[in-house]
Amino acid sequence: MKMIIHIFFILSLVSSTSFASVQDFCVADPKGPQSPSGYSCKNPDQVTENDFAFSGLAKAGNTSNLIKAAVTPAFAPAFAGTNGLGVSMARLDLAGGGVIPLHTHPGASEVLVVIQGTICAGFISSANKVYLKTLQRGDSMVFPQGLLHFQLNSGKGPALAFVAFGSSSPGLQILPFALFANDLPSELVEATTFLSDEEVKKLKGVLGGTD
Amino acid sequence: MKMIIHIFFILSLVSSTSFASVQDFCVADPKGPQSPSGYSCKNPDQVTENDFAFSGLAKAGNTSNLIKAAVTPAFAPAFAGTNGLGVSMARLDLAGGGVIPLHTHPGASEVLVVIQGTICAGFISSANKVYLKTLQRGDSMVFPQGLLHFQLNSGKGPALAFVAFGSSSPGLQILPFALFANDLPSELVEATTFLSDEEVKKLKGVLGGTD
Amino acid sequence: MKMIIHIFFILSLVSSTSFASVQDFCVADPKGPQSPSGYSCKNPDQVTENDFAFSGLAKAGNTSNLIKAAVTPAFAPAFAGTNGLGVSMARLDLAGGGVIPLHTHPGASEVLVVIQGTICAGFISSANKVYLKTLQRGDSMVFPQGLLHFQLNSGKGPALAFVAFGSSSPGLQILPFALFANDLPSELVEATTFLSDEEVKKLKGVLGGTD
Amino acid sequence: MKMIIHIFFILSLVSSTSFASVQDFCVADPKGPQSPSGYSCKNPDQVTENDFAFSGLAKAGNTSNLIKAAVTPAFAPAFAGTNGLGVSMARLDLAGGGVIPLHTHPGASEVLVVIQGTICAGFISSANKVYLKTLQRGDSMVFPQGLLHFQLNSGKGPALAFVAFGSSSPGLQILPFALFANDLPSELVEATTFLSDEEVKKLKGVLGGTD
Amino acid sequence: MKMIIHIFFILSLVSSTSFASVQDFCVADPKGPQSPSGYSCKNPDQVTENDFAFSGLAKAGNTSNLIKAAVTPAFAPAFAGTNGLGVSMARLDLAGGGVIPLHTHPGASEVLVVIQGTICAGFISSANKVYLKTLQRGDSMVFPQGLLHFQLNSGKGPALAFVAFGSSSPGLQILPFALFANDLPSELVEATTFLSDEEVKKLKGVLGGTD
Amino acid sequence: MKMIIHIFFILSLVSSTSFASVQDFCVADPKGPQSPSGYSCKNPDQVTENDFAFSGLAKAGNTSNLIKAAVTPAFAPAFAGTNGLGVSMARLDLAGGGVIPLHTHPGASEVLVVIQGTICAGFISSANKVYLKTLQRGDSMVFPQGLLHFQLNSGKGPALAFVAFGSSSPGLQILPFALFANDLPSELVEATTFLSDEEVKKLKGVLGGTD
Repeated sequence: MKMIIHIFFILSLVSSTSFASVQDFCVADPKGPQSPSGYSCKNPDQVTENDFAFSGLAKAGNTSNLIKAAVTPAFAPAFAGTNGLGVSMARLDLAGGGVIPLHTHPGASEVLVVIQGTICAGFISSANKVYLKTLQRGDSMVFPQGLLHFQLNSGKGPALAFVAFGSSSPGLQILPFALFANDLPSELVEATTFLSDEEVKKLKGVLGGTD
Repeated sequence: MKMIIHIFFILSLVSSTSFASVQDFCVADPKGPQSPSGYSCKNPDQVTENDFAFSGLAKAGNTSNLIKAAVTPAFAPAFAGTNGLGVSMARLDLAGGGVIPLHTHPGASEVLVVIQGTICAGFISSANKVYLKTLQRGDSMVFPQGLLHFQLNSGKGPALAFVAFGSSSPGLQILPFALFANDLPSELVEATTFLSDEEVKKLKGVLGGTD
Repeated sequence: MKMIIHIFFILSLVSSTSFASVQDFCVADPKGPQSPSGYSCKNPDQVTENDFAFSGLAKAGNTSNLIKAAVTPAFAPAFAGTNGLGVSMARLDLAGGGVIPLHTHPGASEVLVVIQGTICAGFISSANKVYLKTLQRGDSMVFPQGLLHFQLNSGKGPALAFVAFGSSSPGLQILPFALFANDLPSELVEATTFLSDEEVKKLKGVLGGTD
Repeated sequence: MKMIIHIFFILSLVSSTSFASVQDFCVADPKGPQSPSGYSCKNPDQVTENDFAFSGLAKAGNTSNLIKAAVTPAFAPAFAGTNGLGVSMARLDLAGGGVIPLHTHPGASEVLVVIQGTICAGFISSANKVYLKTLQRGDSMVFPQGLLHFQLNSGKGPALAFVAFGSSSPGLQILPFALFANDLPSELVEATTFLSDEEVKKLKGVLGGTD
Repeated sequence: MKMIIHIFFILSLVSSTSFASVQDFCVADPKGPQSPSGYSCKNPDQVTENDFAFSGLAKAGNTSNLIKAAVTPAFAPAFAGTNGLGVSMARLDLAGGGVIPLHTHPGASEVLVVIQGTICAGFISSANKVYLKTLQRGDSMVFPQGLLHFQLNSGKGPALAFVAFGSSSPGLQILPFALFANDLPSELVEATTFLSDEEVKKLKGVLGGTD
Repeated sequence: MKMIIHIFFILSLVSSTSFASVQDFCVADPKGPQSPSGYSCKNPDQVTENDFAFSGLAKAGNTSNLIKAAVTPAFAPAFAGTNGLGVSMARLDLAGGGVIPLHTHPGASEVLVVIQGTICAGFISSANKVYLKTLQRGDSMVFPQGLLHFQLNSGKGPALAFVAFGSSSPGLQILPFALFANDLPSELVEATTFLSDEEVKKLKGVLGGTD
């Protein structure tokens, strides 16, 4: 009998403090308004273990494309449980000869670990210095936030890597697509990159940009 | 006359810049959507001085329970005005022999100040080193974010302390409740803590957990 | 034919990763709920280049007022595209003899650059030390977050400056208005500033405060 | 024997991960260089439990002064263990008629809890609106970062309060001292506050400022 | 000739702005003073590509221990290039029956991805709710900052996972070691966990704690 | 006599709290160690008003170069007082036909205001959408952190703009220099940008890169 009372009091302690837990996490509710800090939070009563798990990284991305490579992100809201928690991952698949073109993540630094194959990776600093490494299975490399970097399969077979980001929405700006896969007028591309008109128009053709 | 014109111009200056004040504060509106940065903001026009005051810490918590202690938090949204301001407080009442069991605050560091009585407090670092102090009235102690810590009445009469947090939603995970007051299967508790089956089942019984 | 297939694959890569871009920016939607991190984000599909541009700084503020000066802010949501991006600007116009009275920005530090004229500017540290400079065209000065500072036209003609803030909502608390342009009882103003009753009542009269 | 081996392996696990604990905390080393994030960290091997405790709040501040009040801060580095942990406290003693003059904390919001007596407290928003409360024992109030606020003993006997800050270095700028206790030329004080020459010179005399 | 002059001017532009790059990264210099934001930065002139790469995750940890598991962290300063960049990784090796006991990371949230085998993982919220998943190869799960969580090999063969953290110094507090592998007096462990004296002393014996 | 005593007590209050002011600011000491949060702080006793002022933006940059443009930054440590304060500025001079090539700031968003002339500016989002504006005198535009953007003189005479950043070390990575002004092997540039060998080698020649 006394024990039951004890339990009663304990539970009341627990419940009286449980509202503090609301911000343990903020599972993304893609239907709610977004804020600078991320997606709205799903009602905590409707959150389940499935919100914190993601199977989208299990399957190799389709590398039957021009770059023979695929990036599969597990960012919010695809992986809803990461919203606002300051970390996320992605999967890189590189077929033989595959390459992730020069790109930046405006919102986070990245750590890459090679799971299979051999990857040549590098980044360029603000001082235009190049940091280049050939990574084998198990090797890791860090790419500072916002700097241009790339990954390239420099081995014989396919390569696989997982990458970690210090944000649930790191962003991804792929350089050749940013330059050539939109309606930025060719003359502006040329003036701001020093590329020739011929080169710009050729790559706009390849990548689907308009003039 | 000239003065009246002056006032007119000053007020127009004031009003032209007043929209900048919208983010002086963000009083919690518990009915709006939450974001990773906290609760939605109440309409500023409906904010009053009462949103910035809280009387919930004035009354001693009920210590007639197993731990002979009570934690009374003044976190958002209970204390709506703290939302997003990066600070909050709580009140600890410890009857004779009372104890706040080992716990962590995932979202903030804590400073405690003793108002009445004698409190033995301690925390354990990531390196498993123990930092232990016996605190008298007016003594304060800091507990770094996320580390296990406890407070225990080591004096003769009741003890009272106020604690400060560097977040309006510091969270509170109480170790024995986390282990024994839910449906985490006993075999998982045992495998992940090295505790015996007998001990786990006994404490699940005391604290209301199911197997 | 092969090219078309390539484009197809590339575009599918682009679109599969494009949801990561949602948080490149968060253009303020003033109709949505606010959060501690700022205004809600406008639907990205409705965002245009006009959300990232602002013409409000082009026109001189009206300096026909008591202070012979005007502050024209370009903060969120007036300049909606800055919301959550941690930077904003404002324009200061000072007619001959004009002054921006002592004020603070609770939410950001400020850098000022003089475009025209001569400005005497200064701030006071927590240690009550005064840092004072007379700035000519092109000179810049930094004012640390939350500290009292002022700008005063110390030249002969009008002066113009642009100021930068490390927040899209830096806030602006102008000291004489905070003291004398509201309903804070005169006796409280006096007790908390050491000013005389006569002085307080006189300035409440000038600035529109009530007693 | 097998147990001993187990312990050996466990300890090697522990030690292999223990360097991760270096940043559990960063006890202030006032002799080292400071950075924008705070004081240098004391060598972790020399850190003891005393670095995390502070007895300076136990004793009432000396209120035999013009304001009949005293602020006793427990900020870094006085309370070395708080350095970088984003939280600190202070003690306010107000004798009968005592007042903490209008002031701001440039670096943090504040929560106050009354321990003894009656305190009239208030703050002024960027929109020049006044939020005023009379607080009894146990009542708490929050003051948003960087906004002017004050505390005044509005009861009969002495008053005591503890205040919490969301920073280990919140700063403290006391308005009348910032205006009148330094060498800011009287004419600049007058031009930037609208105060009269007579008033400014009188208060500079009282508070030790020079002209 | 004209081209040479052009290059000269361009390089002077580059060099005039290159000091801005100093804070692209801050490779840890373990010999310099630490600050709350991390380790001191190595002289940028001495930074090489090797500072941004780490081979320590390539080799399986030694799982011949009580928990049949090993955690191999790639945190700063072991992986010096991650210092201050807000991201890091670690490798988990679990032999058959292996378990990473209940633990927290006080400084970061975590995302885990399974590379080999089957892992049962879970975490407990502040509201004492359990979120439990069985993860196969390629599955990922997120663990919010500061909350108790565990990983357990629930398959037949060995399991391997990589984990990502949103900090270069996430910390690691392993519950049974925090409780039983130090000199925290048994009576305090008992009072703050509700564990029996017998259980505490037995586990202190197993894990090397003293009474 | 009584007044002198008052002053004595007030000054002791001031001095007892003045150590809190140490972190009002952290003027860069370029000779001390850097940390992830910025440069070491200069001894506060040696800080003068000159540390908070900067005249380097007063003079037009030299635009007699290939791009007919110049960027003059006022970042830490050139403008030492901005260190750690989260804001800085720069000056853009564009002669007729001048262009600031495509570039990113990895560490901050930017607001530009046109002082003289006409500037065509634009940025590209992660979704490869182009946001383009022609800006006249007084017009401003915001460029979100880490995204590729450019400024181009689209008027007849010279153009001048000031830009604000939400960091004292925003960084600056200029795309054509990052691609062509270093020793990144041509084959890697080509593989990661889709540019032709001929184009890459030509621009490496122009910009001083080696193969």
